[in-house]
Amino acid sequence: MTQNPSGQWFSEVITPDMSILTRVKKSHYSGRTRFQRIDVIETTTSGRALILDGKTQSSETDEHIYHEALVHPPMLMHPDPRKVFIGGGGEGATLREVLSHKSVEKVVMVDLDEEVVKISRQFLPNHSKGAFEDSRVELVHTDARKYLEDTDEIFDVIILDLVDPLETGIAYKLYTQEFYSIVQAKLGRSGVMVTQSGPAGLMNYHECFTPIIKTLQNTFTYVLPYNIFVPCFVSMWGFTIGTNLSPVTSPDQRDLLICKRLPKKLRFYDQISHQHMFSLPPYIRHGIDNEQQIITDENPVFMV
Amino acid sequence: MTQNPSGQWFSEVITPDMSILTRVKKSHYSGRTRFQRIDVIETTTSGRALILDGKTQSSETDEHIYHEALVHPPMLMHPDPRKVFIGGGGEGATLREVLSHKSVEKVVMVDLDEEVVKISRQFLPNHSKGAFEDSRVELVHTDARKYLEDTDEIFDVIILDLVDPLETGIAYKLYTQEFYSIVQAKLGRSGVMVTQSGPAGLMNYHECFTPIIKTLQNTFTYVLPYNIFVPCFVSMWGFTIGTNLSPVTSPDQRDLLICKRLPKKLRFYDQISHQHMFSLPPYIRHGIDNEQQIITDENPVFMV
Amino acid sequence: MTQNPSGQWFSEVITPDMSILTRVKKSHYSGRTRFQRIDVIETTTSGRALILDGKTQSSETDEHIYHEALVHPPMLMHPDPRKVFIGGGGEGATLREVLSHKSVEKVVMVDLDEEVVKISRQFLPNHSKGAFEDSRVELVHTDARKYLEDTDEIFDVIILDLVDPLETGIAYKLYTQEFYSIVQAKLGRSGVMVTQSGPAGLMNYHECFTPIIKTLQNTFTYVLPYNIFVPCFVSMWGFTIGTNLSPVTSPDQRDLLICKRLPKKLRFYDQISHQHMFSLPPYIRHGIDNEQQIITDENPVFMV
Amino acid sequence: MTQNPSGQWFSEVITPDMSILTRVKKSHYSGRTRFQRIDVIETTTSGRALILDGKTQSSETDEHIYHEALVHPPMLMHPDPRKVFIGGGGEGATLREVLSHKSVEKVVMVDLDEEVVKISRQFLPNHSKGAFEDSRVELVHTDARKYLEDTDEIFDVIILDLVDPLETGIAYKLYTQEFYSIVQAKLGRSGVMVTQSGPAGLMNYHECFTPIIKTLQNTFTYVLPYNIFVPCFVSMWGFTIGTNLSPVTSPDQRDLLICKRLPKKLRFYDQISHQHMFSLPPYIRHGIDNEQQIITDENPVFMV
Repeated sequence: MTQNPSGQWFSEVITPDMSILTRVKKSHYSGRTRFQRIDVIETTTSGRALILDGKTQSSETDEHIYHEALVHPPMLMHPDPRKVFIGGGGEGATLREVLSHKSVEKVVMVDLDEEVVKISRQFLPNHSKGAFEDSRVELVHTDARKYLEDTDEIFDVIILDLVDPLETGIAYKLYTQEFYSIVQAKLGRSGVMVTQSGPAGLMNYHECFTPIIKTLQNTFTYVLPYNIFVPCFVSMWGFTIGTNLSPVTSPDQRDLLICKRLPKKLRFYDQISHQHMFSLPPYIRHGIDNEQQIITDENPVFMV
Repeated sequence: MTQNPSGQWFSEVITPDMSILTRVKKSHYSGRTRFQRIDVIETTTSGRALILDGKTQSSETDEHIYHEALVHPPMLMHPDPRKVFIGGGGEGATLREVLSHKSVEKVVMVDLDEEVVKISRQFLPNHSKGAFEDSRVELVHTDARKYLEDTDEIFDVIILDLVDPLETGIAYKLYTQEFYSIVQAKLGRSGVMVTQSGPAGLMNYHECFTPIIKTLQNTFTYVLPYNIFVPCFVSMWGFTIGTNLSPVTSPDQRDLLICKRLPKKLRFYDQISHQHMFSLPPYIRHGIDNEQQIITDENPVFMV
Repeated sequence: MTQNPSGQWFSEVITPDMSILTRVKKSHYSGRTRFQRIDVIETTTSGRALILDGKTQSSETDEHIYHEALVHPPMLMHPDPRKVFIGGGGEGATLREVLSHKSVEKVVMVDLDEEVVKISRQFLPNHSKGAFEDSRVELVHTDARKYLEDTDEIFDVIILDLVDPLETGIAYKLYTQEFYSIVQAKLGRSGVMVTQSGPAGLMNYHECFTPIIKTLQNTFTYVLPYNIFVPCFVSMWGFTIGTNLSPVTSPDQRDLLICKRLPKKLRFYDQISHQHMFSLPPYIRHGIDNEQQIITDENPVFMV
Repeated sequence: MTQNPSGQWFSEVITPDMSILTRVKKSHYSGRTRFQRIDVIETTTSGRALILDGKTQSSETDEHIYHEALVHPPMLMHPDPRKVFIGGGGEGATLREVLSHKSVEKVVMVDLDEEVVKISRQFLPNHSKGAFEDSRVELVHTDARKYLEDTDEIFDVIILDLVDPLETGIAYKLYTQEFYSIVQAKLGRSGVMVTQSGPAGLMNYHECFTPIIKTLQNTFTYVLPYNIFVPCFVSMWGFTIGTNLSPVTSPDQRDLLICKRLPKKLRFYDQISHQHMFSLPPYIRHGIDNEQQIITDENPVFMV
């Protein structure tokens, strides 16, 4: 296979020893917000992509995999999700998926960075598909931890769609036991939470995925980790659900539930995808068993 | 994440619009055989890797995922695999996995390129782990199709661990209906075949995976496609099993079968991994339903 | 030296075995004209740069080296340059340098690609610095060869600031003996022509530089090749002057001439730079002596 | 121009915003000495190249330009060079050029890193061409500064062919006023010294070239800077001569001197190349006039 590599490319450092080069068809936006560097580029392979501090957050052609995987498993575990909290999720695609559940009456979305939301609305309209205009949405720009701590509201589902916990970043205090206690306190009795949990590859699942699982096991009665390959991350990716309500959906029920609760047709998530995602490879299963690290405000976890 | 990118890197073109750069720790071998360019490099991330015509074939740290996924599902579907044929598989890791089955009495391995085998034995000893010295092995260097056509032997399991069907390559005639008919003719009544089936990603599953499935459906009564993320391919990867015997292993039986038939502990494959691999995403399921192309000698399939 | 290579980069293939990667600070324009692909990017190192068909044409921080080297040697060889013809030169920087000569009364600039000029005026204002607004300028968008053939005008100096002669490109008929005869016919008795002549490096001076010199020697009595390192080309670069008037400027005269004829201060060109540029390395001197190729319409020269 | 970029590449970071990628044909050696990382690679463009700490030191196809430029100007300035000191120069090519002068009776070469010399002799035989076997050579592996300080010998010519002064490197104390005083003390009355002086490009001549010139002007009566494009450095490169003897070679004498003193034919250096190299561009001439920095042990200079 040959190519003419003259032209504009986006380089993403995956590890110090591996980078991905993707051809840029068009560069839509480059700038700095108060909190981070932001780029919106368009590639032939992936369509438009949001990049924060040099790390791809999602891309048009495959964001449905990540966002359906993040949103629907916890939503369907709850018997009747009406009030939902989203932490992060600036592109608006998590919001879009949450709003597609008929039962939802109110969504509070808290993203620290107002500009990310603004730029996403302008340059990534296919991500939010009008979700920000939905009257059920309350959009707040503040620290998600602070907001949850201060609010009197109780939520049915809490979805944490945060940037990775980088040492130089803004999110690592949203991946600690202390924070998860706050989350639990704001969930109703049948409440379900989920957090994106970083890379789940053979060489890096231990960076944050298994520590997050271990930490959530200290907080919730039931912890359900799962993973899926996300093309724009060029990696398996981890998610973790925490809940105190026994999650007992039989395979047969799941497709029926999707049909009943979601008027729109999902592109990725169904019973078979669910089974794929929740069947973790042995190295992660053993990794969970052997994980020692409880993440705390004092001893946070950082991705390299 | 920062890095000093001065130094030696291996660049692999995945698509004309995407390349992977991996840092080379040591370059063990570079040369040309009669058939292809061959490189053995060592990277920090992946250990030693075999590269043919610029395409990574397998790497030390994750080859067990690919090779266990290729070998054990078809082997365990057969009630008592004694005679096994391997097409390709020059590194010797497929051979290693086949030989780990206690029932196996004879393995014929046919790899066109003698030098690939020689160089793999010398520079990739952890791939074959002594398999080439096993007295059950008959190693032949000729065209696998020609060999099968000419042989009088009947095999229990036929495993096709071939390079991808490239237009400029040597393997595309090992991915056609005519070839699969030859394969079927050399299988016993309970015989099972498997072929590696190329990338199974959202953007490229249709390049060869679904055409191979469709073509095998024209030949075998039961066709079972599956997929797994292979780190060194930086992609989901497809495999397809063909058999005329109804494959009825219950989940409970599988781990028991592994335990009974394989003295060694597998690193990747078990009942849960099986379930993960055989739960295909909706886009591939729909892709199979809509696939029209039957691959023939006249109309072969080529990866781009 | 370390760097964080995440982010946007411009890759330029210099040879099939060498590429340059430059970090893109901002991408100002990307598109296609009727004739070529056009990008205007901004880099930390080089400021804003014009890229046609993936090849850098000039960049803000060093374009004065190329443009002063192209324009002033031939202009100063002419005793009194009043009428000047420019072929190509879409950025307007060649025009800017020509207009800085007090003696100039009229400049005809013929660039095939109207859009390149338009986009340069908008996104590269520091290249033309208002030159296109000068009333002495006549700007025509047609084929430079056709224009010269058809015109009745006679010019004092003809400056060929063309894209390289690529097989797939638009300019190779502006590098042939037939074209140079047309050029000569449109020059006055003391007329001087110059053409950019491609790379002048150790490994590639023979691609077009020495063939152009050889071809011009078939047309003009005096042929003066010279070269200079152009940072944005990451290479030594060749230029060739052709004239029928004996060029007899003594070193002492040159700085005086510059002072008398040019009100503005030059940034690069003076007597010492002249001496540097016209002292060719032995490999090019020998290359000229041994060059056999006369470039004709039938046997054009193509850069690889 | 297209290419298939799959395969092995050498990446060299020139600035944090620019890298060069060169295709590796063969990797001959990779390792670490006591002092530095060392690679010997072979590229199609440049032949075999020595790389220390990720920085190309010289490559087979163009090393004659660098080494002739470094050695012959100072050697020819001396009326009768018999005893020569070389600091650094591990490849042996500087030694080779020095030994080609008939007058030379003794060369002391001091390179800190014995392994670099050993590996160069083995893998870069075309660099030294047998120079290390010449009976006039005394090879010492110690710190060049320490050696000069301690020796009682007086040299006719001292040639400093050192790695660049990097903050993390081994050579920065060989670019200070204190060191240059030691050098001067070990030179005879007609003695001449030269030092490689780092990049001489438009954007980086001030990093070390002009500070070195300024510092030498504090030590020697006559300081002669010059520059040349070195292809494997992808940059103009600086050199500086220091001497207390008035350098009065007329252009006519130089080619005669070369003919008389050197039995072998030079490939690059002659009167015209000399003129090219010693005609510095205006930005460097002004840079020298405005340079303030005197490099001392206390305030060393570091390349970024």
